[in-house]
Amino acid sequence: MSDNTRDTAPASRTPLTLLGTGAMGSALARAWLAAGHRVTVWNRTPARAGALAAEGAAVTASAAEAVAASRLVVACLLDDASVGEALEHADLTGRDLVNLTTGTPAQGRARAAWAEARGARFLDAGIMAVPPMIGHPESGAHVLYSGSGALFEEHRDTLAVPAGARYVGADPGFAALHDVALLSAMSGLFAGVTHAFALIRREDIAPGDFAPLLASWLTAMTQSVHRTAERLESGDYTEGVVSHLAMQSAANATLLRTAEEQGVSPELLTPYMDLMARRVADGHGDEDGTGMIDLLAQAAPRATG
Amino acid sequence: MSDNTRDTAPASRTPLTLLGTGAMGSALARAWLAAGHRVTVWNRTPARAGALAAEGAAVTASAAEAVAASRLVVACLLDDASVGEALEHADLTGRDLVNLTTGTPAQGRARAAWAEARGARFLDAGIMAVPPMIGHPESGAHVLYSGSGALFEEHRDTLAVPAGARYVGADPGFAALHDVALLSAMSGLFAGVTHAFALIRREDIAPGDFAPLLASWLTAMTQSVHRTAERLESGDYTEGVVSHLAMQSAANATLLRTAEEQGVSPELLTPYMDLMARRVADGHGDEDGTGMIDLLAQAAPRATG
Ligand SMILES: NC(=O)c1ccc[n+]([C@@H]2O[C@H](COP(=O)([O-])OP(=O)(O)OC[C@H]3O[C@@H](n4cnc5c(N)ncnc54)[C@H](OP(=O)(O)O)[C@@H]3O)[C@@H](O)[C@H]2O)c1
Ligand SMILES: NC(=O)c1ccc[n+]([C@@H]2O[C@H](COP(=O)([O-])OP(=O)(O)OC[C@H]3O[C@@H](n4cnc5c(N)ncnc54)[C@H](OP(=O)(O)O)[C@@H]3O)[C@@H](O)[C@H]2O)c1
Repeated sequence: MSDNTRDTAPASRTPLTLLGTGAMGSALARAWLAAGHRVTVWNRTPARAGALAAEGAAVTASAAEAVAASRLVVACLLDDASVGEALEHADLTGRDLVNLTTGTPAQGRARAAWAEARGARFLDAGIMAVPPMIGHPESGAHVLYSGSGALFEEHRDTLAVPAGARYVGADPGFAALHDVALLSAMSGLFAGVTHAFALIRREDIAPGDFAPLLASWLTAMTQSVHRTAERLESGDYTEGVVSHLAMQSAANATLLRTAEEQGVSPELLTPYMDLMARRVADGHGDEDGTGMIDLLAQAAPRATG
Repeated sequence: MSDNTRDTAPASRTPLTLLGTGAMGSALARAWLAAGHRVTVWNRTPARAGALAAEGAAVTASAAEAVAASRLVVACLLDDASVGEALEHADLTGRDLVNLTTGTPAQGRARAAWAEARGARFLDAGIMAVPPMIGHPESGAHVLYSGSGALFEEHRDTLAVPAGARYVGADPGFAALHDVALLSAMSGLFAGVTHAFALIRREDIAPGDFAPLLASWLTAMTQSVHRTAERLESGDYTEGVVSHLAMQSAANATLLRTAEEQGVSPELLTPYMDLMARRVADGHGDEDGTGMIDLLAQAAPRATG
């Protein structure tokens, strides 16, 4: 067990324990070490924690030992099941458990109840960054937290060391929900970008000339989310609509025809076009796209439990 | 025929003819009139041009007359077929025809050949704006032009009056191709945004609190198009990849599970996930997403003619 930061770490820095030294856990550990925190780490495969020991982390042989070492315990493991496994024999009484493991909202809620039943305060989190961004807040890296507001307030400065810290609510499912919502939106963005580049792929157009047009166009279009939020709040989907759904739906024919001309599969575009056509067929051709959100949310029964 | 701007328009402003006074055509006409251009308009349904006559436009009874009135002729009609119909009996010899009608790349190319065979120079265009943005270049409104570079250079100042003017190449199909590529990318962006809002729709999360997180996240993620362009140009899809496809593909399970928990149909997300899974299955799990562009462009034979 390496102990060489214990005496030099400033007393004001909260000591913490980190479970999981994979790609993300190691980046987090390094950020906290660099900021002068005393960091105790544990990893299922001990060899993967060796480099951190050399950099000043205290390495324990068991997760239970690591949990015993600090009141603030951060878990960054593969998935929710691995959190349950790793902490099975740990005493969580009086601990502040911060779960940086990606999961679903239901997993976040269940894990909160599980941790609280074991005497811990709990925060769930979603990391909006890749490991190289950790420790570089100027990269825009941030972590969304939800659950115990008291825990968040108390450890806010420590949590903000590796990446910007944003609290999104007391419901422990909200961090995962926000995380997944942002990732899902990104997936749509990337699908659109993939189709756009595919359209120009076989033409004499330099991708590097096209990219700035695409970036500035998408950045401008992204601003529409504020108007969408206003409409969701007011419930008025038709007032002041300039480009209504019926017109947009008709214009989709040109997009599909162009895909065909360019030999590009329309598979990434058609589901949104089909949803739009359904909303128009439902008699909402005079709306903007906001009503499609309701249509999508109504499409399946909500899972329970 | 209203003629009241003829004597007052500054001699330096190029007179022009506009065919089509629908929502977009009327906005364009007003921008040119406001800038002091002599504007001759024609519309199939004459009543729809009446308001512009009162604002100083000269209205003609036939498209042929309108074409005869100015060397610079702008068409903003419903679709490519309506351009052919409207100009059937017009003498295009020595005219500069600028087609602001939305179409496909193949339509732009065919319309260019058609116009040139009739003795005109030709520019095709794609309007990246809605009518209320026209005449307000600070809105980011712009028009993409392709075709005759000489025509574009000669009329650049006039074309830049209603919205920013950007020339994207001598190939008359490129304006439409860029236009459709940007609109297709936007469609993906909106699909992602629709799914994201649907996920939070039934939770106690104010859309207005979520929107800023979504906007800043998507704006940051949009920057990845520059890296994608670099990879397309270099052909190297694996160097320095942080979040490789195999990892992204595995992470999709959390997105799908969350959609199910929230009762949201996954239909807008699954085609991109399926394409990703195919790329991984093809042995490219160590790449970033760039190779999916090639996969999409290979998916269908390219249409000819
Ligand atoms: N990497 C990213 O870009 C990124 C971005 C955002 C969020 N995240 C999230 O961060 C978390 C960690 O990701 P990562 O990139 O660090 O993954 P990783 O490099 O694959 O590391 C996974 C970690 O989980 C441990 N683990 C797996 N199964 C376990 C079990 N049953 N019991 C105990 N430990 C177990 C592994 O231990 P062993 O060493 O013994 O296998 C390792 O420490 C994930 O939830 C991920 O979704 C990652
Ligand atoms: N509005 C937008 O947000 C927007 C944005 C970007 C691009 N555009 C493009 O701008 C063009 C015009 O759109 P818009 O919004 O002005 O449409 P609009 O308001 O529906 O006007 C359509 C125009 O086309 C004319 N027209 C239709 N069929 C014709 C035919 N066979 N022969 C002659 N004229 C015919 C109409 O004449 P009548 O009055 O006689 O019907 C009218 O002047 C379209 O290509 C559209 O895609 C529009």
